Amino acid sequence: MSRIEIYGDSISGNCYKVQLLCAQLGIDHSWHELDLLKGDARTDEFLAMNPNGKTPLLQLADGRFLPESNAILWYLAQGSALVADDAYEMASILSWMFFEQYSHEPYLAVARFIKVYLGDPPEKQAELEGKYPGGYKALKVMDQHLAKADFFAGKRYSIADIALYAYTHRAHEGGFSLVKYPNVRDWLKRVEHQPGYIPMSERH
Amino acid sequence: MSRIEIYGDSISGNCYKVQLLCAQLGIDHSWHELDLLKGDARTDEFLAMNPNGKTPLLQLADGRFLPESNAILWYLAQGSALVADDAYEMASILSWMFFEQYSHEPYLAVARFIKVYLGDPPEKQAELEGKYPGGYKALKVMDQHLAKADFFAGKRYSIADIALYAYTHRAHEGGFSLVKYPNVRDWLKRVEHQPGYIPMSERH
Repeated sequence: MSRIEIYGDSISGNCYKVQLLCAQLGIDHSWHELDLLKGDARTDEFLAMNPNGKTPLLQLADGRFLPESNAILWYLAQGSALVADDAYEMASILSWMFFEQYSHEPYLAVARFIKVYLGDPPEKQAELEGKYPGGYKALKVMDQHLAKADFFAGKRYSIADIALYAYTHRAHEGGFSLVKYPNVRDWLKRVEHQPGYIPMSERH
Repeated sequence: MSRIEIYGDSISGNCYKVQLLCAQLGIDHSWHELDLLKGDARTDEFLAMNPNGKTPLLQLADGRFLPESNAILWYLAQGSALVADDAYEMASILSWMFFEQYSHEPYLAVARFIKVYLGDPPEKQAELEGKYPGGYKALKVMDQHLAKADFFAGKRYSIADIALYAYTHRAHEGGFSLVKYPNVRDWLKRVEHQPGYIPMSERH
């Protein structure tokens, strides 16, 4: 094995985060496409690599594994302009990434999953409806912050923006409207104008 | 303002993480006790400091704020033995901290909140029951890892252990049993023998 390997499903925003970072930083890697809906992350083979059964999963050239999308972003971005040398700036980047995983992704990503990938079934309507208050609260927090700043941390584009962009730019697929969040909409465009930007792809 | 200020509710595991770190590293600070059940984190005054309305919240001596318990741990532990210089080790620490916020805390902490602080009301029983499969899955992932390692990352006690200890050692309050997770039980004891360890306190 001579380069890094990444296991993921291209329809997952968490996996797209890593694809976007690799494109922007020119990180050479092998992509192993998994189909999460078919259970590819729950096989014995995959669970031996990541016992939590989640993607994306990074494997270093020496064979060691690293799960969790935002930890992978942190690792791969070391030494680049997408992280910060200043401790407070870096802590702010991480703070927004923890916000993303706790206060954002469980609402926006899960609503999208129910509507697009589960086909919006009747038995999931109560769960889906329960996703909107929390998701809109997250969007409001983001919009307030972006009224005063172009990016989430350190006054420049960072891995915090990549983490938050992934599911925010697909919020409509989960039934969310961004009409009341103009600062979020402007920020999405700023992200899309960053060097090396690639859109979310269909399955590889 | 000459030192750091921390806003939190001592009955919250997320807040205890920061108290434990400060005790172990001897970090001088002022603690501002909030009562989350009385809405102290939803006042206009608090929302002006942290628009997401969550604790703990760190305020630096220069007035800047930092929310998110695990980002606060990362910031306050810089330069100490509780973080790692090696990039892969540090990424592994962060990976377990993201695991904690996504795959652990939403089950173990919320079950505890429903049973202990909401008084286990009948209308919350369905939500409570829904917390056990995910919580036990997290405990299983932890137990498997701890079969091969004394701590979560880098072969030594780190902020990943502090993050995971907070709600794991109170799992029983949420109705979880650790009887099937002997490696987790042994690890809890190892954490409790670390220099400077303090137990979770009652409200200040």
